[in-house]
Amino acid sequence: MVETIQWTDSGVVMIDQTRLPLEEIYVTCSTYEDVAAAIRGMVIRGAPAIGVAAAMGVALGLLNASSGDLDAQFARICDTLAATRPTAVNLFWAIDRMKRRFAEWRALPLDELRRRMVAEAAQIRLEDIATNESIGRHGAPLLPNGRTVLTHCNAGALATAGYGTALGVIRAAVASGNPLDVFADETRPFLQGARLTVWELQRDGIPATLITDNMAGHFLNSGRIGSVVVGADRIAANGDVANKIGTYSVAVLARENNVPFYVAAPISTLDLSLPSGDAIPIEQRPTSEVTHVFGVQVAPDNASVQNPAFDVTPNRYVTAIITERGVARAPYEQSLRALAGA
Amino acid sequence: MVETIQWTDSGVVMIDQTRLPLEEIYVTCSTYEDVAAAIRGMVIRGAPAIGVAAAMGVALGLLNASSGDLDAQFARICDTLAATRPTAVNLFWAIDRMKRRFAEWRALPLDELRRRMVAEAAQIRLEDIATNESIGRHGAPLLPNGRTVLTHCNAGALATAGYGTALGVIRAAVASGNPLDVFADETRPFLQGARLTVWELQRDGIPATLITDNMAGHFLNSGRIGSVVVGADRIAANGDVANKIGTYSVAVLARENNVPFYVAAPISTLDLSLPSGDAIPIEQRPTSEVTHVFGVQVAPDNASVQNPAFDVTPNRYVTAIITERGVARAPYEQSLRALAGA
Repeated sequence: MVETIQWTDSGVVMIDQTRLPLEEIYVTCSTYEDVAAAIRGMVIRGAPAIGVAAAMGVALGLLNASSGDLDAQFARICDTLAATRPTAVNLFWAIDRMKRRFAEWRALPLDELRRRMVAEAAQIRLEDIATNESIGRHGAPLLPNGRTVLTHCNAGALATAGYGTALGVIRAAVASGNPLDVFADETRPFLQGARLTVWELQRDGIPATLITDNMAGHFLNSGRIGSVVVGADRIAANGDVANKIGTYSVAVLARENNVPFYVAAPISTLDLSLPSGDAIPIEQRPTSEVTHVFGVQVAPDNASVQNPAFDVTPNRYVTAIITERGVARAPYEQSLRALAGA
Repeated sequence: MVETIQWTDSGVVMIDQTRLPLEEIYVTCSTYEDVAAAIRGMVIRGAPAIGVAAAMGVALGLLNASSGDLDAQFARICDTLAATRPTAVNLFWAIDRMKRRFAEWRALPLDELRRRMVAEAAQIRLEDIATNESIGRHGAPLLPNGRTVLTHCNAGALATAGYGTALGVIRAAVASGNPLDVFADETRPFLQGARLTVWELQRDGIPATLITDNMAGHFLNSGRIGSVVVGADRIAANGDVANKIGTYSVAVLARENNVPFYVAAPISTLDLSLPSGDAIPIEQRPTSEVTHVFGVQVAPDNASVQNPAFDVTPNRYVTAIITERGVARAPYEQSLRALAGA
């Protein structure tokens, strides 16, 4: 299994997800600004993974901080990391957790405070892997035996500290003996499906077929697809799901063709403070992601572009939400709150 | 307006649609085999345009034929051109028309036969432009005033001899004073939307915004889109529509969001011999179209790929079919047959 992100003595080491699958290059972030730039530039992406990255960024910033006015420095570190990407709530969840620990341990000697904060970030990483394995156990029985699973974007090991959410469910199903195969939407504009999901599944020996995003409806309609599993960047209290742009389309097309549509995500992806998905902020990414592919121009000069990075799938299209604490079904207001213990 | 295809003394001249929009290069086909290769390689594409190309290819083949066994040569020319692409029925319609003329004029002196066949191909080209202008007149009043029109692939001047079918409707609406703007799906894998539709609309000064295919659902759901207009490669007797892969998805998402979905196509796109879309052959294109973009690899080595070039939209998602003879609505069995005069 690939290591998405690791804490090392020389800094936070990440596999560069902008270069996969053609090059396996690891980058080392030695400052919290490096980590923020890596998140913003999608060297690391995927809601759980950027949560882990942000936590490690906070720890790294504190390690490099001078002894003067630690509170101001800490606030700046947290604010910088929080300003990288707006949609995935795991980012804010991880920063908030680090803030709470900082407040709790603030009176300790600086060395001890730093040691504990680094350990906390490492702990968030380990918990994420365990969480995903648990999501996999809960979700695996939902996937129809021997049928093709469609997934969108990459909700795999690379989107998390390891194992993956949607791909974790697929991995767990395969491990339990389900002879499924996977159709992966290429997921324009950033091509996470083509570049990351197919690469991950190939390494695991799980049969994967790459399709363009606009083929998903055709294959859902053809009877080829037995279920859909995707990840999530933020889930509102009513079960509306923000996820990679195109997820809404897949969900509508799945329901139109009576194919179950599953969302796999950790409890940290829930944002119970939002009554519905309408309030989830949707990131707009640079137009060059659409007009260029790996630096190659594919549209006329000066083309106007829209590039929302996410969309919101209303809860009525979601068959179930798979978390590490169990499977939530409609009505989600109740089921999600119960799982969250809120 | 760009000239998609023209008959010249040195052969059939086409703008190379594989190189647009970065390069405007014209290629000259001096044999019918050149024309067949251009159709297969998508130097020229779009159902009406490949009909014109095939007719010109037949005329070119006859011009180059030796005087011995003309019937066998003519049959080989027609068979070669018919074997280029399977889905667009206009290809077969145009070849059949040339075959009928050949039979009709077979007894004439060879020079006169050749002259008439060349003139017939030129006539098919001219008729196509007039047909599209007529489609535009019938379709323009259907587009809501000042609202955004979504289109998929390229059903423009480049997909026809000129003016376009779906883009013809848009052009006619703009000419009549409708201050609409256009959202263009990029249309993977061949990127006809990004490369061709945006380029055409820019040249006409019609505001166009490029989006990836997986954003269409999001914008249909947002209320931004007032109507959808697409072309067609073949329409069955019941109104089922084969068109560029992804059209089915757009149609389902349009209906889900109560946005009218229009198909603009000439009568020559009707295949009343097929009771439904189930019988329409769907072309599978090379996997490299998905794994590579302009020669740049975007997927891991040895990725399994599906690449159906078209899908079928069931008639229940089609609000109306706009032809040069008027607008057909459900039940299409009756309305299409009436327009076709069949």
